[in-house]
Amino acid sequence: MIGYAGRIARVDLGRGSVDYVPLDAGTARKYIGGGGLGAKILYDETGPDTDPLGPENLLIYMTGPFAGTRVPSSGRHAVVSKSPLTGIFAESDVGGFWGRELKRAGLDGIVITGRAGRPAYLWINDDGIEIRDARPFWGLDTYDADEELRRATHPDAKVSSIGPAGERLVRIAAIMHDGKDARPAGRCGLGAVMGSKNLKAVVVRGTRNIDVADQGGLAASVKGLVPTIRDGTEAMRRFGTSGGVTTHESMGNFPLRNWSLSRWPEGAAKISGQAMASSILVKPYFCAQCIIGCGRVVHVKEGRYAGSESAGPEYETVGMLGGMCLIDDLEAIAKANELCNRYGLDTISTGAVIAFAMEAFERGLITPSDTAGIDLRFGNADALIKMVEKIGTRSGLGETLGEGVRRAAGAIGGISREFAIHVKGLEPPAHDPRCYHGVALAYATANRGACHLQGFTHAFERVLSMPDIGIDRPHERHNLENKAELVAKLQNLMSMMDSLKACKFLHFGGVRVTHLVEWLQLVTGWDVGIQEFMTTGERLYNLKRLYNNRCGITRVDDNLPPRFTTEKRAGEGLVVSLPHLGRMLSDYYEFRGWNAEGIPRLSTLERLGLEEEVERARDAVRIEP
Amino acid sequence: MIGYAGRIARVDLGRGSVDYVPLDAGTARKYIGGGGLGAKILYDETGPDTDPLGPENLLIYMTGPFAGTRVPSSGRHAVVSKSPLTGIFAESDVGGFWGRELKRAGLDGIVITGRAGRPAYLWINDDGIEIRDARPFWGLDTYDADEELRRATHPDAKVSSIGPAGERLVRIAAIMHDGKDARPAGRCGLGAVMGSKNLKAVVVRGTRNIDVADQGGLAASVKGLVPTIRDGTEAMRRFGTSGGVTTHESMGNFPLRNWSLSRWPEGAAKISGQAMASSILVKPYFCAQCIIGCGRVVHVKEGRYAGSESAGPEYETVGMLGGMCLIDDLEAIAKANELCNRYGLDTISTGAVIAFAMEAFERGLITPSDTAGIDLRFGNADALIKMVEKIGTRSGLGETLGEGVRRAAGAIGGISREFAIHVKGLEPPAHDPRCYHGVALAYATANRGACHLQGFTHAFERVLSMPDIGIDRPHERHNLENKAELVAKLQNLMSMMDSLKACKFLHFGGVRVTHLVEWLQLVTGWDVGIQEFMTTGERLYNLKRLYNNRCGITRVDDNLPPRFTTEKRAGEGLVVSLPHLGRMLSDYYEFRGWNAEGIPRLSTLERLGLEEEVERARDAVRIEP
Repeated sequence: MIGYAGRIARVDLGRGSVDYVPLDAGTARKYIGGGGLGAKILYDETGPDTDPLGPENLLIYMTGPFAGTRVPSSGRHAVVSKSPLTGIFAESDVGGFWGRELKRAGLDGIVITGRAGRPAYLWINDDGIEIRDARPFWGLDTYDADEELRRATHPDAKVSSIGPAGERLVRIAAIMHDGKDARPAGRCGLGAVMGSKNLKAVVVRGTRNIDVADQGGLAASVKGLVPTIRDGTEAMRRFGTSGGVTTHESMGNFPLRNWSLSRWPEGAAKISGQAMASSILVKPYFCAQCIIGCGRVVHVKEGRYAGSESAGPEYETVGMLGGMCLIDDLEAIAKANELCNRYGLDTISTGAVIAFAMEAFERGLITPSDTAGIDLRFGNADALIKMVEKIGTRSGLGETLGEGVRRAAGAIGGISREFAIHVKGLEPPAHDPRCYHGVALAYATANRGACHLQGFTHAFERVLSMPDIGIDRPHERHNLENKAELVAKLQNLMSMMDSLKACKFLHFGGVRVTHLVEWLQLVTGWDVGIQEFMTTGERLYNLKRLYNNRCGITRVDDNLPPRFTTEKRAGEGLVVSLPHLGRMLSDYYEFRGWNAEGIPRLSTLERLGLEEEVERARDAVRIEP
Repeated sequence: MIGYAGRIARVDLGRGSVDYVPLDAGTARKYIGGGGLGAKILYDETGPDTDPLGPENLLIYMTGPFAGTRVPSSGRHAVVSKSPLTGIFAESDVGGFWGRELKRAGLDGIVITGRAGRPAYLWINDDGIEIRDARPFWGLDTYDADEELRRATHPDAKVSSIGPAGERLVRIAAIMHDGKDARPAGRCGLGAVMGSKNLKAVVVRGTRNIDVADQGGLAASVKGLVPTIRDGTEAMRRFGTSGGVTTHESMGNFPLRNWSLSRWPEGAAKISGQAMASSILVKPYFCAQCIIGCGRVVHVKEGRYAGSESAGPEYETVGMLGGMCLIDDLEAIAKANELCNRYGLDTISTGAVIAFAMEAFERGLITPSDTAGIDLRFGNADALIKMVEKIGTRSGLGETLGEGVRRAAGAIGGISREFAIHVKGLEPPAHDPRCYHGVALAYATANRGACHLQGFTHAFERVLSMPDIGIDRPHERHNLENKAELVAKLQNLMSMMDSLKACKFLHFGGVRVTHLVEWLQLVTGWDVGIQEFMTTGERLYNLKRLYNNRCGITRVDDNLPPRFTTEKRAGEGLVVSLPHLGRMLSDYYEFRGWNAEGIPRLSTLERLGLEEEVERARDAVRIEP
């Protein structure tokens, strides 16, 4: 099958078995790959009774049709599972080189079930898959594990592994890739799923060619766009994603002091991508096939925060370890970032839960006896770093915080629920829903909890448009008219991006749906048009929603913490506006063809060809006509 | 002390003791009486650890300075306690004659603590208080108990008693007054508090005169207003409060099918006050000193719903037992109302929880095996009546439903949380917050949970104004500007009405704050002005809030069920609008001088003279400067 390897490996760690199942063209066209195809498999094989940390959960690595092709920035893969942090659908979109490598090894994906009797890792190459003893690597951080595992396999192998956090089932643990380049499957605690399977790593080396239907056509199409993409993303290459820090701060989009502070211009300037470019930046980093280069390689050479030359903090990380904790020391942020990478922790959730703890500490809900004497105040960089260590090693207060904000607030109790900022258990990233009301709706409805990437709406509420799907100009950020439609359309589109495995930053380089459709045609040979493309995205979004509905998610979960709905941000230059979530949700359910309680209607699911999935949902969900 | 009896009885049912404590002028002026003074006593003597159904809870009956005077419609009292339904502050405002009688017996109030070893009742007259054996009366419904207790004491005595529901600790049980005239302390489950104390009744006969500072002045002042009041309330006298049913229905204010239906004009017409006036109405009913006569005496003489000549359903009851359950049979509603009165059940919560159960039944979450075969569908009048009986006797499914909607949804689980309509555990009455956005804010912030009377805002969003406190005209119901200010001011005013013991319907008769202040001067001799009057109302509102804060209430509890915030009502003639609760809350906290989490600031509490209360709160509440 053109554009695909055509088969998926099934690894049962309990039985020690490896099987291969064909990926047929019908399934591929219907669910594409990545997060979409992963969702389909998860949907079919798990459900409300699945314990996310039990052997019955699936850990799914999935590439997509674009992976390993000439499509720009397509060296990506998804990791899909049921989240131990949120208890619902989880997917994480990963950059780097690992996804392409898997495709080159002849696999579209790997579905891992069971639990190994002792620490194991997978060694995958052109010849097949071996389940190997990982005891020599257990306990290593992800940078060291990468080195050691490549030494034990192949120097050019690509490594996906957990660190001590995932091993210890920390619920905000990430799965890391590419060693010091540190490409995370960050969100939703997937590292803990991997740890629960006693699986240290998946190491891949592949050398096969990847076929596309029209190699020449694809090359020409891509070539034509390269200058546009390069031009449109030049600032990203120079300053990385955190080049936006000061702009976001000036607009009220940057997270400050656990979302309680309005302006912090001096601090933001000190931790911006521009500040990084003139200090610790070594060079930009490019994923496979990438011409954007938003990644950072940094080196803090000396001082208390000296670290290795390795991946630098991106925008979300600067926001969450920096702004959220009021840390204006870029070297400290780089150090905390490196520690998160090494332990295998999601920097977003880690920053969020530490900021939460700082607020709890300043309010006296956590005392120095809880922190082992750490003065856990906002702005204390040493405290940040020590807390990252405690979370990464699951020690002391870190054990509670590593459970995520929702559970930590449950443990701390009292007024802490007022500042436990999460949606469906997932801590929001560094975009303020009071700044972009589409983000408010997107956070409330994203299938993995508070997420900016499943809608990517902030970009379309400021600079981007997508005329080929009716988004003729950037949407006014506080205007409710058609906001629900904007968010739903973008969620459908991003569900495709997450399935093709294409980088969302391509949109900043002028890549439109028309181009994506053309590339999909050229890669697969399918006669696919914009309508099928967007309907497929809609199908995938609804599939994930229905999975969540089966897990008990309905309208009452499509909510925001009241800090976002009732606390105004006010300060110089800020437009003060609180999101009218109820009205947006009402419009959204209607536009989506969901009932008032946020459950897709039968007519919607049938229109999307999800009849089979409906049958499986009926026990747990009442689906209205 | 003029306008007051000057003393409060303290009855300890555990010890069998009766004491009297003086009510000093300073306390009276600061906390007035009724709900305000009751709140002060409750605040001082109970807290977060108090079990509402334990002997340590207080059951407080309290009159006010107006009770027993010539002030129109002032024959009222309050019952105050910690609610077993909501776990927070509870007050209930009662009409009829009992309050005046208590004052005439020389008491401003009674504070009842402890638990009697066996069923007891209090017999209060001019000579004092006896704790008497109530075993002969235990099990009687409230109509029969009234007759029997008057026979055992004095034929003109006034009886406050519980029925079988309160005896069985049903959490939506009411305390009933005046027998067949059925004046309830309806809301918050106060009947269960009385039952938990093994207290069947408080029977009062008093013959003393009640002094006022300027009898002539008061007489003249009142006399001047009587024609205005009579004119302004003529429709109420003719058609009762349910004379408004068809208007409310046409505006989208009337509750239909557990708040899920938009229009029902034919049904509403059949159960309106006008329909009642031409069918089962015998005569209007007037409370003590009342010249309005909104009460109904009805008689269904024959047929399956034949009942006694007794109190008829008022607007809220018609809304909750009628519209909410889609029962368009007025005789059935009258019968269900009579049963609620006899068992001692709050008709609002009873109608709400039955409507909730009907929705659960139609969705298959409750089955005929749960209902003992009752076909619990919307519109089934027999099912309504049978469920009232089950709740009143705490049998079968009635045991679950009698716990109120919040607990019932907890027991039923699943999607039922989506249609469990309550705020802070209290079921809303018959006013739709989508129709009046001030009602949305008032429901979210009322101190006893979803309540229309603690703000009475709907009246000021349609017909009423109050220029002497800056409400120059009725507030446009969907206009957010100054909505928070309107709601807060009215809550302060209504806190005064609940403390003076004055009837809120006086406002329909043109009674303004200026008149209330004048009457308070004439009754007490105090040199009180509008500013002190309104500040006192604000003090009382904040006092109750701070009590709730101590019990754990903060901003996250100031919420509405999502059916109100996300489901549009749409139908002929309806203005479609969903309340922007977040913004209103934000404005409200600011106007009130509360912090962002809904806790009064120290500066606010000090301004209101609540320093002493602050000290008592500090253990449980972090009060910001």
